[in-house]
Amino acid sequence: MAKKFIPLFNRVLIEKVVAPTKTAGGILLPESTSKLNSGKVIAVGAGSRGKDGNTIPVSVKEGDHVLLPEYGGTEVKLAEKEYHLYRDDDILGILQD
Amino acid sequence: MAKKFIPLFNRVLIEKVVAPTKTAGGILLPESTSKLNSGKVIAVGAGSRGKDGNTIPVSVKEGDHVLLPEYGGTEVKLAEKEYHLYRDDDILGILQD
Amino acid sequence: MAKKFIPLFNRVLIEKVVAPTKTAGGILLPESTSKLNSGKVIAVGAGSRGKDGNTIPVSVKEGDHVLLPEYGGTEVKLAEKEYHLYRDDDILGILQD
Amino acid sequence: MAKKFIPLFNRVLIEKVVAPTKTAGGILLPESTSKLNSGKVIAVGAGSRGKDGNTIPVSVKEGDHVLLPEYGGTEVKLAEKEYHLYRDDDILGILQD
Amino acid sequence: MAKKFIPLFNRVLIEKVVAPTKTAGGILLPESTSKLNSGKVIAVGAGSRGKDGNTIPVSVKEGDHVLLPEYGGTEVKLAEKEYHLYRDDDILGILQD
Amino acid sequence: MAKKFIPLFNRVLIEKVVAPTKTAGGILLPESTSKLNSGKVIAVGAGSRGKDGNTIPVSVKEGDHVLLPEYGGTEVKLAEKEYHLYRDDDILGILQD
Amino acid sequence: MAKKFIPLFNRVLIEKVVAPTKTAGGILLPESTSKLNSGKVIAVGAGSRGKDGNTIPVSVKEGDHVLLPEYGGTEVKLAEKEYHLYRDDDILGILQD
Repeated sequence: MAKKFIPLFNRVLIEKVVAPTKTAGGILLPESTSKLNSGKVIAVGAGSRGKDGNTIPVSVKEGDHVLLPEYGGTEVKLAEKEYHLYRDDDILGILQD
Repeated sequence: MAKKFIPLFNRVLIEKVVAPTKTAGGILLPESTSKLNSGKVIAVGAGSRGKDGNTIPVSVKEGDHVLLPEYGGTEVKLAEKEYHLYRDDDILGILQD
Repeated sequence: MAKKFIPLFNRVLIEKVVAPTKTAGGILLPESTSKLNSGKVIAVGAGSRGKDGNTIPVSVKEGDHVLLPEYGGTEVKLAEKEYHLYRDDDILGILQD
Repeated sequence: MAKKFIPLFNRVLIEKVVAPTKTAGGILLPESTSKLNSGKVIAVGAGSRGKDGNTIPVSVKEGDHVLLPEYGGTEVKLAEKEYHLYRDDDILGILQD
Repeated sequence: MAKKFIPLFNRVLIEKVVAPTKTAGGILLPESTSKLNSGKVIAVGAGSRGKDGNTIPVSVKEGDHVLLPEYGGTEVKLAEKEYHLYRDDDILGILQD
Repeated sequence: MAKKFIPLFNRVLIEKVVAPTKTAGGILLPESTSKLNSGKVIAVGAGSRGKDGNTIPVSVKEGDHVLLPEYGGTEVKLAEKEYHLYRDDDILGILQD
Repeated sequence: MAKKFIPLFNRVLIEKVVAPTKTAGGILLPESTSKLNSGKVIAVGAGSRGKDGNTIPVSVKEGDHVLLPEYGGTEVKLAEKEYHLYRDDDILGILQD
């Protein structure tokens, strides 16, 4: 079983963050809070190709917490875990604490 | 909960201005005045990528009051507040007092 | 209420000229004369972006009387007045007296 | 009423030539001869924009007699006369006596 | 009546070769031989425009016998004769004896 | 009747290889072996045009045995023989013994 | 029968890995593990053409174990074995042990 996955071009491997539906104390959170479609960057490709073949690096890096569009992304199962592959330019932005 | 959101590429985070339907004195304003689809720029991305990978900055900045197209924009909820993400080139123009 | 509007990119703000249906003396003009779809340029954007990010200025200027295509244009209401936004390359030409 | 019209970009203002259906002597010409869709160039735009903003002049000039495609062209009425606007690259060729 | 026609850009004026259905001796040729869709180049345009406005000459010249695609081409009648206009890059190739 | 055909641009003239359905000894070959859609390169064009008009040579040469896509190709009859015209970038690859 | 196949441009010849449905000891593996759509790179093309004709090499090499998209790929039979041709930019990424 493959242990490492290197996305190609400007693809980004993301592990979606499943928002908690209850607070630590067990109180049900309103459905809206848990609807943020975000995830953690696991691996990034080298980047997309400029028209002369030059490589244009992606704009996120491993560990970034990113906001994802409602649709899109390719589901990928690796070592029994579910990930999603997005193109760099489909990722909406970076969430910082 | 993320405190800061950095849009990617030429995306612009906007907080829509909901126009008052009444004057300060409580008189109902004609529906037309309240129909201006505008908003305030909260955060901007670094800019779009030129064909050689060079970054082309966006044309609006934080704090600008901007006129928005009738359609388009991606709804984004952050810390319980509603925002909209627009691409720089979809924003119609800047409203100045 | 915003007093000034700066179009973005190669957008042009135009106030349509509503052609008179009667002569000064009150004689009804044939419907055809009043059908010229034209307007006055109120404000212009900085220009469109070349592929390297360079700005390409628009080809009309404030005060120009321009001929507009039959369709297209975005209706915009500013300070209770009706304007239309056109892209520079959709404007057919300049009418000179 | 505007006396002069300057087309924008690579647009060309053309006055269509309505082919005679009878010879000078009044003899009815076969329908085919009168079907040549051609016209005279009245005014030309500065030219289209290259990708770097440079202007690429149009390939016809005022006075040229040109062959037009069967379809296309925008009808424009100026000072009660009917003209047509074509893009430079839609004009088929130049007819020379 | 125009005596000369100069195609614009990369257009090529072609007079189709109508293949003989009988040999010189009058024997009926099988339908397949007469189906070669070919023609003689009568006039060529200056060439197409590169993205910087430079002219890229066409790849055929007057007098060439060329193989034409099954579809396409614009029918043009000049001085009572029927011609066809093709774009340079739609012509399949050159037939040489 | 034309003796030589020179394809234009990046077109490639190919004579399809009709795979034998029987071995030399007459034994019927399984249908799958005879399904390889391949052919021999008879003639190649000068190449396609780069955006500045420079010629980009094709990637196969006369005599190459090439693998063809399932669909596409233009049937061309020359001197009673059937050929097919493919664009260089539609040819899948080169088969070498 | 051709012994060697050289893909053209940025095509990549891949032999799909058919995941084992049972462990070595014969125990049926859950259907999900066997669903990884991956394969081994057998041969790669020289690369795609930049707009000036320069060759942009592919990003995988012979022997790489790659993750493939759910759809796409051209089935190719060579010497009785089944392969698939993918374009370099359709391959999702490289799986490393």
